[in-house]
Amino acid sequence: MERAALGAPPSPAERLVFFSDAVVAIAITLLALELPVPEGRTDAEFLHRAAELRGDYAAFLISFAVVGTQWFVHNRLLAGVTSIGGRLPQWNLLWLLTIVATPFVTRVLTADGAFAARFATYAATQALSGMFLWLMLRSVVRADLLDPDRTMAAAQRRLVAMTVAFLISIPVALVTHWAYLCWIAVPLVARAGALA
Amino acid sequence: MERAALGAPPSPAERLVFFSDAVVAIAITLLALELPVPEGRTDAEFLHRAAELRGDYAAFLISFAVVGTQWFVHNRLLAGVTSIGGRLPQWNLLWLLTIVATPFVTRVLTADGAFAARFATYAATQALSGMFLWLMLRSVVRADLLDPDRTMAAAQRRLVAMTVAFLISIPVALVTHWAYLCWIAVPLVARAGALA
Amino acid sequence: MERAALGAPPSPAERLVFFSDAVVAIAITLLALELPVPEGRTDAEFLHRAAELRGDYAAFLISFAVVGTQWFVHNRLLAGVTSIGGRLPQWNLLWLLTIVATPFVTRVLTADGAFAARFATYAATQALSGMFLWLMLRSVVRADLLDPDRTMAAAQRRLVAMTVAFLISIPVALVTHWAYLCWIAVPLVARAGALA
Amino acid sequence: MERAALGAPPSPAERLVFFSDAVVAIAITLLALELPVPEGRTDAEFLHRAAELRGDYAAFLISFAVVGTQWFVHNRLLAGVTSIGGRLPQWNLLWLLTIVATPFVTRVLTADGAFAARFATYAATQALSGMFLWLMLRSVVRADLLDPDRTMAAAQRRLVAMTVAFLISIPVALVTHWAYLCWIAVPLVARAGALA
Repeated sequence: MERAALGAPPSPAERLVFFSDAVVAIAITLLALELPVPEGRTDAEFLHRAAELRGDYAAFLISFAVVGTQWFVHNRLLAGVTSIGGRLPQWNLLWLLTIVATPFVTRVLTADGAFAARFATYAATQALSGMFLWLMLRSVVRADLLDPDRTMAAAQRRLVAMTVAFLISIPVALVTHWAYLCWIAVPLVARAGALA
Repeated sequence: MERAALGAPPSPAERLVFFSDAVVAIAITLLALELPVPEGRTDAEFLHRAAELRGDYAAFLISFAVVGTQWFVHNRLLAGVTSIGGRLPQWNLLWLLTIVATPFVTRVLTADGAFAARFATYAATQALSGMFLWLMLRSVVRADLLDPDRTMAAAQRRLVAMTVAFLISIPVALVTHWAYLCWIAVPLVARAGALA
Repeated sequence: MERAALGAPPSPAERLVFFSDAVVAIAITLLALELPVPEGRTDAEFLHRAAELRGDYAAFLISFAVVGTQWFVHNRLLAGVTSIGGRLPQWNLLWLLTIVATPFVTRVLTADGAFAARFATYAATQALSGMFLWLMLRSVVRADLLDPDRTMAAAQRRLVAMTVAFLISIPVALVTHWAYLCWIAVPLVARAGALA
Repeated sequence: MERAALGAPPSPAERLVFFSDAVVAIAITLLALELPVPEGRTDAEFLHRAAELRGDYAAFLISFAVVGTQWFVHNRLLAGVTSIGGRLPQWNLLWLLTIVATPFVTRVLTADGAFAARFATYAATQALSGMFLWLMLRSVVRADLLDPDRTMAAAQRRLVAMTVAFLISIPVALVTHWAYLCWIAVPLVARAGALA
């Protein structure tokens, strides 16, 4: 390679955001990596086996929706930001830790037995994820790095609603498998939180 | 890290596109991850075993071509767009779901037995993929976010042709393994659709 | 998500290059994914086992160097290009196919037995890779999309030299395991080609 | 695809940085790929098994912190750079080699037995990583590609402190498992180095 200069690199803020997007993109794609293929010599056997594996497929779709939603919120959160700084990079790295852990806690969730412990591991990871996003939001607001035309009140309410719904599901899981309903409630609560 | 500001982050539209590109890049690269290595102590054994595995290698090449084509259409589709908005982010996320599922449905396709069910799983995923791209296109046209110099009629016809070819292959697979020919016809039909 | 527009997406040329960079980044990182961990309860056993696995580690380093070099050439090749078009996207996708296949052919190379067939599979993939880069270069030159200040003669010679070195190694492998020396010669030949 | 030109590609410097970010993003996400899921039919069995696996989880968190810190330093290092050139691309590729190797050396670290050899493999990889970053920094300073408003003295001291801490841990591991404490000292030493 010749020694000529190759131009200026992109800014740290651009790198931080594209690095985060790449991590989320990899985590969301890895979710499908270990999905079990239904065995079966005949079409009937295949369909029967696929039905037995519905728990794994549902967990994949739940995690895809959770990570996709987290990414949308991250996108919205930084859309009104005029400059990245303060403690935002640290909270962002901790948020990425929860994203990186999501394919793992999805495998934890779908393994056999120990329902409450597995459920709580997953829900706690997602609650932490929401919490770190909320801390990013707060550090943006505090450091006054927000476009003055925008208010983050709706995003803050949505994040609080999501995080609380995941937290509430943990004690519910000690009592009943219907704790999954708390997660189905998450998008509804989030929407209500955004409109409130 | 010092607390100084690091500049403004990239726009939500840039992030949405690069996030999508990263997901597609990972999915297309993961296709080769579980390709079986031919065993064999001698060159003749190696070639014999490689010939036996030709189904796996063909499925890899088909999926590479399918995902590569989907990405080209996505690239073309957004090339004339002046602004991202409306329902496009939602359709885009559902499109990414079909891309993320493609390495999995490729493994489904190449497993033994149950030809019609495996074939239909793969073809239905790709038909959905085409449908979500088409919905993206429609939301762009409806929200009037298209560069007025460009017409998307050719891209629309191409997408409809591709999706219909995958859909038609599903009932054909109930009757004969020659249903694969419908897929080979896809690029020809797509080209004819683009020219029509 | 609100329905507001999110700004214009990046250009097709930017997307093509970042998509390619993402594919190369994933392929180069996956090379280390299946490296075998040396077993051993004592430090001496560990070192002994690590020495036995040196073939796997060498293959990893070779493929890292090959993919890294391919990426540098791709980077240089497009550095003087003022506009992407013509057949370049098609050759680029075929180039990416050889990159995506590299972790797989590295596993082929390090499996036991059938030296000539395994060696030829690897070398042929890399020769194809060089050839597709060379076709990209030619389509750039032909479509007159090159910054007139730049000459691509050195890059062309380098690519031809690399491709020829990989091609020559294939018949040599039919005779002797020293065919690896042809690869060690690749960077020297490439440098000579660049200076010629 | 029509033959129309698609615009100019991004600059080599932008590509080098985004390529690096993508490699780091993949390596950091792959760290969680092989984390073992605790087995157990009851919540108590699950928690007991999870506690037994704490070494794997700790190694994941250590490597996440190490790679995350390396990325932050890389980000800071290039933030004041006005132009990429000289030997920086070569040192950057060698730095990426250590990053790509990190998920592998993490697996080496957590396997059973041979403590000193496994510990030294991991620590040496991270010391090399710090060294290559330091060589990048030096090549930037030497080629006079630094924004004159910025001084890299703090970053240089931090890198030297980190690298030395990893190097010191290697002989310590020959004597005692407490060598891990040297790594815990790394961030403290780095901070002290930055302030000195």
